[in-house]
Amino acid sequence: MNELFEMGKRILQEQPFSIFLGAELTVFEKGKSEITLVVREEFKQQHGFVHGGVISYLADNCLTYAEGSVLGDAVTSEYKINYVRPAIGERLIARATVLSSGKRQAVCDCRVVAIGEKGETLVAIAQGTISKVDQ
Amino acid sequence: MNELFEMGKRILQEQPFSIFLGAELTVFEKGKSEITLVVREEFKQQHGFVHGGVISYLADNCLTYAEGSVLGDAVTSEYKINYVRPAIGERLIARATVLSSGKRQAVCDCRVVAIGEKGETLVAIAQGTISKVDQ
Amino acid sequence: MNELFEMGKRILQEQPFSIFLGAELTVFEKGKSEITLVVREEFKQQHGFVHGGVISYLADNCLTYAEGSVLGDAVTSEYKINYVRPAIGERLIARATVLSSGKRQAVCDCRVVAIGEKGETLVAIAQGTISKVDQ
Amino acid sequence: MNELFEMGKRILQEQPFSIFLGAELTVFEKGKSEITLVVREEFKQQHGFVHGGVISYLADNCLTYAEGSVLGDAVTSEYKINYVRPAIGERLIARATVLSSGKRQAVCDCRVVAIGEKGETLVAIAQGTISKVDQ
Repeated sequence: MNELFEMGKRILQEQPFSIFLGAELTVFEKGKSEITLVVREEFKQQHGFVHGGVISYLADNCLTYAEGSVLGDAVTSEYKINYVRPAIGERLIARATVLSSGKRQAVCDCRVVAIGEKGETLVAIAQGTISKVDQ
Repeated sequence: MNELFEMGKRILQEQPFSIFLGAELTVFEKGKSEITLVVREEFKQQHGFVHGGVISYLADNCLTYAEGSVLGDAVTSEYKINYVRPAIGERLIARATVLSSGKRQAVCDCRVVAIGEKGETLVAIAQGTISKVDQ
Repeated sequence: MNELFEMGKRILQEQPFSIFLGAELTVFEKGKSEITLVVREEFKQQHGFVHGGVISYLADNCLTYAEGSVLGDAVTSEYKINYVRPAIGERLIARATVLSSGKRQAVCDCRVVAIGEKGETLVAIAQGTISKVDQ
Repeated sequence: MNELFEMGKRILQEQPFSIFLGAELTVFEKGKSEITLVVREEFKQQHGFVHGGVISYLADNCLTYAEGSVLGDAVTSEYKINYVRPAIGERLIARATVLSSGKRQAVCDCRVVAIGEKGETLVAIAQGTISKVDQ
């Protein structure tokens, strides 16, 4: 495991909310990140699908990671998410990519897929602005 | 307590993720909704602020409620959120309003505030499209 | 006419695209802006409504003005717009307000209305991040 | 030239605003569209860059075209755009792709590039929801 990936995993372990949900950093490279979450009953809404809030958490966190791989310590300034299919499955995977990066900010996109019996289903699409934390 | 508000509270109790986080519906009127969440240690990120995913959950759910007060059973199609201040405090309150409503969709906005020692601080601003669930 | 308003009008006259379309700054105060546009045949799309691009121009420019009233020379970093009704009428008016302002950025919202025989109709709702131009 | 492309070009000629600006449909395939615009002095803002409103027009129209290639007559419901670099150059090209398509709506993304002496520069990134026009 390389250094960047180790650092990324360590930071995820410093996020109580990510531990609470059980999120796992599965890819972390320059300009790319992937976070995986095993679906639990507690994550659902009244129709039996994974709650949008869980999907938003994943997209938000994954967007920030993508940017963090390029600019260092980062926070999400804003993002937009489209839910495109009900999220059903055993696992959710969010994958984010840096599309454009400046000195202080990067614009990234993210796709969230649900992994079920039939393989991957695209459930959400996000685009956001991530800002470097001033130090 | 009126009928609409009772129904709203019952539906929130059918959302396992909302129970898991401890969200409470505090206002539910025609065109308006408010959801309150007591902040717990598990909701934070590595800098000690409430994780954006928690704030997004609140905004998403509150937007859907606002629309549901007008059109009935509803899901968030998409939304956009700006985080404007770090979320620090004992409670978060999301307040959403229907801005425009058609037969199938409504556009709503939402403000999320953190309640701490100094009173309310605006922490996030969202705008989204909520769609009626076809039956 | 006060100084801020005069400066705002002067800057609009330095935007060739705003002159090209005939936009007029009608309100410009601390935290608030309004831009008015007389609708011409050339502004329409194939269904006879004002083209979304014209409405987006208005929202984008008005958002930037709102922020400019607070932070000075500004550019739109990003925004999101919902078109809620077909834009029919003689004039369009965009009205933007600063919702939250930091040192470098502000978050503003904007409503675009069409003015026709029946008075005002809300046609679009926008929310955006405006950034100070570094100097 | 195939039938779909011809139809697309004919519809663009029915949009007065697209004629007014001089936009040209340069690609129109199942799930994909490209619109090109020659930059004129009238399209600029006060800093000499192409005005965001022009870029938004391009993104908005191109998103609608992408969806129209799949679902037929379509309108933009909403979109979000990030401006990532000042737009300088002789031409702007918007390229949109359908990412997910349902019966009534599709989610598409769009990249706008400026073509100058140094080749292509990415200037804006958009994501939007396009809705079928009911008939």
